[in-house]
Amino acid sequence: MDIVKARTMPGVMELLPGDQIAYNRVRDTIRATFERFGFLPIETPVMELVSVLLTKSGGETEKQVYFTQSTGARAQGKDPDLALRFDLTVPLARYVAEHEPDLAFPFRRYQMQRVYRGERAQKGRYREFEQCDIDVIGRNDLDLRFDAEIPAVIDQLFTQLDFGPFTIHMNHRKILRGLFAALGIEAGERQTTVLREVDKLDKRGRDAVLATLSEDEYGLGGPLADKLLTILNTRGPGAEVLATLRGLDVSHALLDEGIAEMAVVVEALKALGVPADHWCLNLSIARGLDYYTGTVYETLLDDHPELGSICSGGRYENLAGHYTKSKLPGVGISIGLTRLFSKMQELEIVSSSDSTVQCLVARMDPELDHETIALGAELRAAGINTQVVFDGGKLGKQMKAADKAGIPFVAILGPDELTRGSVQVKNLRSGEQQDIPRAEVGARLLAQLGETS
Amino acid sequence: MDIVKARTMPGVMELLPGDQIAYNRVRDTIRATFERFGFLPIETPVMELVSVLLTKSGGETEKQVYFTQSTGARAQGKDPDLALRFDLTVPLARYVAEHEPDLAFPFRRYQMQRVYRGERAQKGRYREFEQCDIDVIGRNDLDLRFDAEIPAVIDQLFTQLDFGPFTIHMNHRKILRGLFAALGIEAGERQTTVLREVDKLDKRGRDAVLATLSEDEYGLGGPLADKLLTILNTRGPGAEVLATLRGLDVSHALLDEGIAEMAVVVEALKALGVPADHWCLNLSIARGLDYYTGTVYETLLDDHPELGSICSGGRYENLAGHYTKSKLPGVGISIGLTRLFSKMQELEIVSSSDSTVQCLVARMDPELDHETIALGAELRAAGINTQVVFDGGKLGKQMKAADKAGIPFVAILGPDELTRGSVQVKNLRSGEQQDIPRAEVGARLLAQLGETS
Repeated sequence: MDIVKARTMPGVMELLPGDQIAYNRVRDTIRATFERFGFLPIETPVMELVSVLLTKSGGETEKQVYFTQSTGARAQGKDPDLALRFDLTVPLARYVAEHEPDLAFPFRRYQMQRVYRGERAQKGRYREFEQCDIDVIGRNDLDLRFDAEIPAVIDQLFTQLDFGPFTIHMNHRKILRGLFAALGIEAGERQTTVLREVDKLDKRGRDAVLATLSEDEYGLGGPLADKLLTILNTRGPGAEVLATLRGLDVSHALLDEGIAEMAVVVEALKALGVPADHWCLNLSIARGLDYYTGTVYETLLDDHPELGSICSGGRYENLAGHYTKSKLPGVGISIGLTRLFSKMQELEIVSSSDSTVQCLVARMDPELDHETIALGAELRAAGINTQVVFDGGKLGKQMKAADKAGIPFVAILGPDELTRGSVQVKNLRSGEQQDIPRAEVGARLLAQLGETS
Repeated sequence: MDIVKARTMPGVMELLPGDQIAYNRVRDTIRATFERFGFLPIETPVMELVSVLLTKSGGETEKQVYFTQSTGARAQGKDPDLALRFDLTVPLARYVAEHEPDLAFPFRRYQMQRVYRGERAQKGRYREFEQCDIDVIGRNDLDLRFDAEIPAVIDQLFTQLDFGPFTIHMNHRKILRGLFAALGIEAGERQTTVLREVDKLDKRGRDAVLATLSEDEYGLGGPLADKLLTILNTRGPGAEVLATLRGLDVSHALLDEGIAEMAVVVEALKALGVPADHWCLNLSIARGLDYYTGTVYETLLDDHPELGSICSGGRYENLAGHYTKSKLPGVGISIGLTRLFSKMQELEIVSSSDSTVQCLVARMDPELDHETIALGAELRAAGINTQVVFDGGKLGKQMKAADKAGIPFVAILGPDELTRGSVQVKNLRSGEQQDIPRAEVGARLLAQLGETS
């Protein structure tokens, strides 16, 4: 038989079991945190009808879509009428519009599934990657306090994940747009162009952006650009930044509205107990332009700002205008888990040292196979993830393999132990070995696993 | 803006949140059981290269494949070089061959992902469905005791899932093929044809199958067909059926080999403590023809045999012959979770009554919003999945909504409670309402949730 080279397509992440376990632990933590805040799970099919998925005319999105067609449909020579989702927002919009009568609003959902983009393969870009999203969707309106729950989720999540110190940067689109209007930079194309430059502040630095904005085509003029950048450069504790904004010599109704809304969010954040050093108001955060209309969020690892935002989102005015006439405002965030995990691996912030297997029952004497099998069953019944060796070479080799696999305990049952009614348990982390009565092994291991985890 | 009707493609299962929670609980139980037995997680990309996926020439499989192509690739007018996986076995074979040097053998993996088949849409058939697979893969050889671990997993899993009484039906391909050879039904096309009929015994009944097998084209003749069916009709406890087989007036080396191997499996099953009334040897189980070479498994719900096997598999001689010259024997099973869940829903064996949200903090007085927000944070810190109401109408309406959503507890904090430093907690299941000191609410709720789950 001809051998076909076993390989995956480029641009996907496939993990060895040890890494997959580490990945799953991150994913489980995200899920548990989402559920802790009362978000409900949904999952949608990987394929959507093209007519539903691609409601926007052309543009960047459509260039990156994976179209799909069954053998039968291909044979008919038609264009594909199915495509893989490229984010979780469009499926959410479709889901809420389709199931609206059956959902309770505000609808709080989490969704953790893979999405697909036919990008050019390059380092750090994935064609398949998992997104972890939460959104709260209101019908007609949505209380501002939900905008404070979102950073509370981010805070709890990244505290749990323990990827190092982080800061949630918040801003409000009405504050931004109000400031622009107050400074005479009118809405529409001009604000968009300027905002796009402002978004580069962190990357290019103040001087470079100032130089660009002072150019003729931006029509701001040096002093105005300078003033704008000075204001947008403000970042700090919520109450302080709001005070600064209130004290500015510029004013506009939209700016006032933004400040008032942000003040509600800041107060709720305090009530939620989000530590003051985990978040700030940062007036330079813009997060794109078309979609968000209120609070916006970015999350940065303090020690790794080069990664950019690892969790972002904001408030939008209407989720599903393409699919329903209902007005569905929402607020949410998204985590690109595949990229985040791969970066955390590169930085050695996550490691793959611990197996899901908690105890290996070694094979000391083939005559005792039925006893070791039974011991394995006893440990499982006690709640221990257990693997039994049927053929693993000498005991030392089995120990080494267990240690390499990240299994913390090895149970050994030889003729002596059988006579004594005990089991030798070796802790591979500490090297300690104990003789434990067989009836107690499960409970003892469970207690020790509880201590170390 | 034109409204596009929000809908999914036919042949997929999309659940409302309450059902998704029930589905996730089943999935979590499966995963926990797989991990309890020391299986390690892997996940593979949904797309595989066509050249890798479709190694077999043509056939049924290829007719059901979903081919995939990015916008850019389509523009070039080429045939798609990507397709969605149609099972988890081919990706496993590719994975093991690709990562062989980095894996520890016997390699025990579980995989729970969706697969895709471009079937004609009909009731009970899915184009997207989730499979939950475990396999143990050896290099060169694989101990027979692994064949006993597999039904031990099935036993623990369906005991946990509590879908009602079940029986694991086992057989051995060498016993079947040995019997055929002993009766003069030679290997190859003829055995295949006869086996296909035998596989219909449960559906068509003995008489109908006997009539068919007695027809000329099968070339068995009435007495031989009768003898065959009488033997294959044997089912019962392992030791008994093996004794029956040993006492037959037919013999063949392959039959002896099968009996000897099965005896090892039966002994190991005993050591594993799998209850005798949860499994049987059933000589009529064939499970297809090409792939399996040893033990085979089917699992039936005793009260719902009409569902057919809900968990099946067996031992195979070589997993990845298309991708590597290494000999990789294995044994495994697969659960079609999407179909199983949908059937359990139809039969009302699973319900969607319990939310992941454990406590709703009601809104009694808008003046106290910051207190209820803080109470919510306190409950979350205590480990309770908590949702806080910001705008839910009158208290009675909030209670009703919580009950409908399957949330077990509602916490109420009004001005009186605030003065007293307590919280009213209503158990929506029992109707009982308690006044609990605020500092103790989290711990008390946690304890009560522990009792009821």
